[in-house]
Amino acid sequence: MIEIERKFLVTSQDFKNEAFKTIRIEQGFLNTHKDRTVRVRLSGNQGFITVKGLSSDNGLSRFEWEKEISKEDAKALLKLCEPGRIEKTRYDVEFNQHVFEVDVFHGDNEGLIIAEVELKKVNEKFNKPHWIGEEVTGNIKYYNSQLSLKPFSTWHHL
Amino acid sequence: MIEIERKFLVTSQDFKNEAFKTIRIEQGFLNTHKDRTVRVRLSGNQGFITVKGLSSDNGLSRFEWEKEISKEDAKALLKLCEPGRIEKTRYDVEFNQHVFEVDVFHGDNEGLIIAEVELKKVNEKFNKPHWIGEEVTGNIKYYNSQLSLKPFSTWHHL
Repeated sequence: MIEIERKFLVTSQDFKNEAFKTIRIEQGFLNTHKDRTVRVRLSGNQGFITVKGLSSDNGLSRFEWEKEISKEDAKALLKLCEPGRIEKTRYDVEFNQHVFEVDVFHGDNEGLIIAEVELKKVNEKFNKPHWIGEEVTGNIKYYNSQLSLKPFSTWHHL
Repeated sequence: MIEIERKFLVTSQDFKNEAFKTIRIEQGFLNTHKDRTVRVRLSGNQGFITVKGLSSDNGLSRFEWEKEISKEDAKALLKLCEPGRIEKTRYDVEFNQHVFEVDVFHGDNEGLIIAEVELKKVNEKFNKPHWIGEEVTGNIKYYNSQLSLKPFSTWHHL
C-alpha cells in the first residue's frame, strides 16, 4: 500500500505513437487535504475510490489505497466532490521494462502533460524516453488534488 | 442511496436487554466537511468506507454511499484519519417492526447515548420505545463527524 513513483514533465507528443493503451479519465476529490486525499475516478468504464496519505522520501513514496467501485457509484460520488474536476487522457507507454503513464490534461489544465513511472524500490534505476523532461516528483502543485484547486490555466507562466 | 433517519437521545439503559445484536464500532474520518464526510469504520470484524453528503429535509435525509472493505484495509485507513476517533457499542433493538440502532459512546464521548431509526419515507410513522427521549435529528453537533472534532466531554453541560 506504499506507492513509489517519479513524475516528469513531458516535452513532446511522440509518446502517443508508442502507447499500448489510451484511456479517458475524469476525477474529483472528496478531500484535497494534503495529509489524506480521497479521490473518485471514472477511468474508461470503471470506477475507483482512492485514498492517499502523506508523502515521504521527498514525495517519492506515498500511502495509497484503492478500491474498484461501479461506474454508477463513481458518477454519483463525483457529484458530491469539491468543485474542480480533473479531466485527462492517459497513455500507457512501455519503455525498457518500465511502464510510463502519460497524462494529457484537458479543461482547465489543458497544456499540461505529466508522465509517471512506478518503481518497486526508491532507488530503482530506469531509462528515460527522449520525451521525458524536468522531474517534478514531490512538487505539490503538480498533484492532481492541487490541480483541481489551482489548475494549470491559472498559473503565472513566464 | 438516500438514507432517511431520525435520531433521538436515550433516557435509560433498558434497551440493552432488548437488543438482538451488539457490536463494537471504531471509526474515524478522512474528511469531516459537512458537505461530504468520508468515514472509515471497523464494525466487529468488518470494515467499511462510507461517504455522506449534505442533508436535506431538516437533516432527515442524506446521501449515503457505503462499501465493505477488509478489516486490514480499515485499520490502515484509520491510521490516516483526522485526529479524533469515535468508539461506541451499537445495540440493535427491534420495536414494533422498526429497528432502532442505539449507540453507546465511549472515550471522549462517554455518557452520550443516541438512537437512530431508519425510515423508508420521510413521513413514515413509527412507535417509540419508552427509553426514547428528545429528538436531535438534523442537529449537527450530534453528527459523529462533529463528535470526533468536539466530543461530548468538551460540551458545556448545564
